[in-house]
Amino acid sequence: MNPDIVRPTLLLNPRTARVNLDRMWARARRNHISFRPHFKTHISAFVGEWFRDRGIRSIAVSSVQMAQYFSDRGWRDILLAFPVNIRQIREINDLRRKCDLRLLVDSPATLRCLEDGLTGTKCPVWIKLDTGHHRAGLNPRRSGAVASLIREIEKAEKLAFGGFLVHNGQTYDCREEECVRKEYRETLGQIGELRRKIKKAGISVQTPVSFGDTPTCSMVEDLSGVNEIRPGNFIFYDLMQEFIGACREEDIAIAMAAPVVSMYPRRREVLIYCGAIHLSRESLINGKGEKSFGRVVPLTPEGWGPSLADTRVIRLSQEHGIIRTTPDLLNRFSVGGLIGILPVHACLTVNLMRGYRSLQGRHIPTMNREDH
Amino acid sequence: MNPDIVRPTLLLNPRTARVNLDRMWARARRNHISFRPHFKTHISAFVGEWFRDRGIRSIAVSSVQMAQYFSDRGWRDILLAFPVNIRQIREINDLRRKCDLRLLVDSPATLRCLEDGLTGTKCPVWIKLDTGHHRAGLNPRRSGAVASLIREIEKAEKLAFGGFLVHNGQTYDCREEECVRKEYRETLGQIGELRRKIKKAGISVQTPVSFGDTPTCSMVEDLSGVNEIRPGNFIFYDLMQEFIGACREEDIAIAMAAPVVSMYPRRREVLIYCGAIHLSRESLINGKGEKSFGRVVPLTPEGWGPSLADTRVIRLSQEHGIIRTTPDLLNRFSVGGLIGILPVHACLTVNLMRGYRSLQGRHIPTMNREDH
Repeated sequence: MNPDIVRPTLLLNPRTARVNLDRMWARARRNHISFRPHFKTHISAFVGEWFRDRGIRSIAVSSVQMAQYFSDRGWRDILLAFPVNIRQIREINDLRRKCDLRLLVDSPATLRCLEDGLTGTKCPVWIKLDTGHHRAGLNPRRSGAVASLIREIEKAEKLAFGGFLVHNGQTYDCREEECVRKEYRETLGQIGELRRKIKKAGISVQTPVSFGDTPTCSMVEDLSGVNEIRPGNFIFYDLMQEFIGACREEDIAIAMAAPVVSMYPRRREVLIYCGAIHLSRESLINGKGEKSFGRVVPLTPEGWGPSLADTRVIRLSQEHGIIRTTPDLLNRFSVGGLIGILPVHACLTVNLMRGYRSLQGRHIPTMNREDH
Repeated sequence: MNPDIVRPTLLLNPRTARVNLDRMWARARRNHISFRPHFKTHISAFVGEWFRDRGIRSIAVSSVQMAQYFSDRGWRDILLAFPVNIRQIREINDLRRKCDLRLLVDSPATLRCLEDGLTGTKCPVWIKLDTGHHRAGLNPRRSGAVASLIREIEKAEKLAFGGFLVHNGQTYDCREEECVRKEYRETLGQIGELRRKIKKAGISVQTPVSFGDTPTCSMVEDLSGVNEIRPGNFIFYDLMQEFIGACREEDIAIAMAAPVVSMYPRRREVLIYCGAIHLSRESLINGKGEKSFGRVVPLTPEGWGPSLADTRVIRLSQEHGIIRTTPDLLNRFSVGGLIGILPVHACLTVNLMRGYRSLQGRHIPTMNREDH
């Protein structure tokens, strides 16, 4: 099977991905909110066309290079969903000549640099709020700091206030639906409180909310409390999302095809040519408390089947992967054969692999490393 | 400083790297053993020239693509130090027309496929022994299996027995010199015992030993028990090696220059533009039991200085890095500035970054993703 696959190759099931897309897009429409998919997961103009075919015109990206890549392929409404790195001000100005770029800030220092360095028309700027993930953003409880940032934006000649941007990344610690819902309710509560306080402080601008994270967008049906959703990972999903409960295993749209290189029946282990430079070093602790770098699936003429029980990638080095399985399942592997690995974190795997092979054998390119 | 560095950029101090190279090369010569550096760490023809300048002509690589890249740049004696993936037999035959390729096996299944599929002259084949790392290789205590593999090679028309290949990867769990020395002594003991047994079984071939792993090659002065060393990481070193005791911090020859994007003084944290797609998700647990994705160094006109105390990269996502520091050291960071990060695992960082910037501002290329 697949004799032309000779080294680690990232398989993509376009049908599964498009079902994921349609499901999420339908949810946004049911909630009457905007859909701004994050393209950092697939980083592919080819996959982007599936969105465009459905009439989707607004996207989010996580780097200036990614914005360049997609603007060169006709995307005009791009939110750079990473706090502005002012060292890239020249590239940002270049980009603004090609597309409607929306920027993200969480500090007065960056705002001032933008006001000094931006050229052209007024630029929409969103304020990043930290609703519990503690990665980037202003704490919404610090309403004075938020109000002062909005005032600076409103005063600025080159800037226009866009709204609040939230990424509930804390949901990645959830292992059940109720946890994700609770985080979402708390986030809405924090934003409501913030809005009341800044209004009281005399700020009357509209404060739409752009909301991210695939777990919430996948697991919370009523998203009417926000104005826009920005999930990214949902297009492919992965084991981390499955573990949180955001998808089922059969919703995962990518799998690595990996050559089986050697077998060690005494330790019930199999060596595959597929390492940290293919899958990434991302791991998770599964329900049994075991560390896993990937779940193992048999490849089939139609794609891949359900994962093998009690079988996982237990170790990864640069190019080596070690699968541990059960004595009964050892016969599912043979030296010179191929096996499939469901990745723990799709975004990092795609970033490493840079390109897919569809189940029909078609090469689907992504942006190049040089673009990135 | 460095106004042209606008995004994560991997700095390389060529002087430090060449000192590392000279130190290791001198050790091989003092021991009167061959030196076959592993090029998977730097994956750069430019860096390779530093080795060639010193008269080094034999190298190891970890993939067929890497062998292609270096053979295209004039390297003729290449050991593919990864058990043969027989799905790549065509590429292997192509390669053998361009260079002296040495292959690695640990199973009769692969040997038979090689005998069936190889073209051209006899190919040197090394047997991988598993001396305790339990990644790949035959257990040397299974002398019968090893003897039978040697016999098959000797019988084969297309194959010639090269020797034993060992990688003492278990030293990566060591935290002191004595542990590394002990593993080395045990490995020599295992090989000695294996040699006695296979001789007794009637096998009279020479069994030279090619020995790898940077910790042992860096920390054990007397390496006269083996015939060849094959370290790779030593050219740059990294925090993992420093933690094992294989190098000092000042021997680390690469550092990531990362833009400072935002600061959160209340939580003593700094947001940098530098994430898992730049450093990799490799982490270590430092001496204080804290997880670290990198140590933080100030950039200087000469390169970088000693690391900041009690300061480390505590979290990484796709493009975000979070540094936690002390209240006293917060003033070493400023929005729009650059900071340096010493990587945990040089090989994975280099694989992601694909190219260096020398301290003189020169771009040093590596093999491209497409080669890989």
